[in-house]
Amino acid sequence: MYEVEVKVRADHEQVRNRLNELSANPLGMVTQEDSYYDAPHRDFAETDEALRVRREAGNDETVEVVTYKGPLVEEESKTRKEHETVVGDGNTVDALLSALGFDATETVHKERERFEIDGYVVTLDSVTGLGEFVEVEAEAKENDVESVRDGVYDVLEELNLDPEEQIRTSYLGLLLGDTGE
Amino acid sequence: MYEVEVKVRADHEQVRNRLNELSANPLGMVTQEDSYYDAPHRDFAETDEALRVRREAGNDETVEVVTYKGPLVEEESKTRKEHETVVGDGNTVDALLSALGFDATETVHKERERFEIDGYVVTLDSVTGLGEFVEVEAEAKENDVESVRDGVYDVLEELNLDPEEQIRTSYLGLLLGDTGE
Repeated sequence: MYEVEVKVRADHEQVRNRLNELSANPLGMVTQEDSYYDAPHRDFAETDEALRVRREAGNDETVEVVTYKGPLVEEESKTRKEHETVVGDGNTVDALLSALGFDATETVHKERERFEIDGYVVTLDSVTGLGEFVEVEAEAKENDVESVRDGVYDVLEELNLDPEEQIRTSYLGLLLGDTGE
Repeated sequence: MYEVEVKVRADHEQVRNRLNELSANPLGMVTQEDSYYDAPHRDFAETDEALRVRREAGNDETVEVVTYKGPLVEEESKTRKEHETVVGDGNTVDALLSALGFDATETVHKERERFEIDGYVVTLDSVTGLGEFVEVEAEAKENDVESVRDGVYDVLEELNLDPEEQIRTSYLGLLLGDTGE
């Protein structure tokens, strides 16, 4: 499966009103704090890898997850090798990584409010230091990536957002000052 | 708290009979498979560190744990800095570590049958490739390590085992051919 995902800057109040008009289904709100690590033996910025500990707090539970993202395997679909698992205690993973020479150098903090509409997930992200964004995403099989992408664009337009303003840089990249892809 | 722990080679059948005579309390049996990792940027054998993923299967549950053990902080009490947390999936941690350049180079597989007697824990370990061992252990505060160690020796003697035959090398060390401390 592929993840088709388009992100734009957007004023949340206007988008939220539009989601109400369209009777979108609210999926709840979570807070995510992501710590990104440097490696002692590689420059992840050069190798295009990432190592992350995420602490996600929802309404009634907190979940902590460690994730490795490998370099792009395929440019067009933005496919990466990913290894991700829940951990019992994120602070212990942080201490373990630190002891091995991996240091948490960047943190991305965001609040995410999710809605579902016509099978697409619309996420209103408030990212500390960056502002408000809206992501529209859906899963696609290899042979229907194009049609799913068209559907994502349609949802953006229904929300009065412009797919042409798509931002391809990750929040981490934006915080680090990347402007390109 | 300190862990006072003495390990000797022993025939399990004889020890088990003796534990029955002493009305020791059986605590159950677990299987542990420990994978030990090499680092891409350090020689753990030289730095006296260890990185381990343990898969422990008991009667009705499996638990997977990742552990970092730092070098000895204090020689006499064998104290080490340790960071340990449960993980959702040990194979994912293995894949994540492998992607970062850490490879599982050694595996220690053992069956552990535990008993409790007078507040001490007696563990009958069957280690693949090494044979049968018995460990006696208890926790001690800093100021009563000596008396707890005497208690551990007493338990060994009650089991007809000789504290003088203590083996200080870890199972991993024994598998790697270490003979000294």
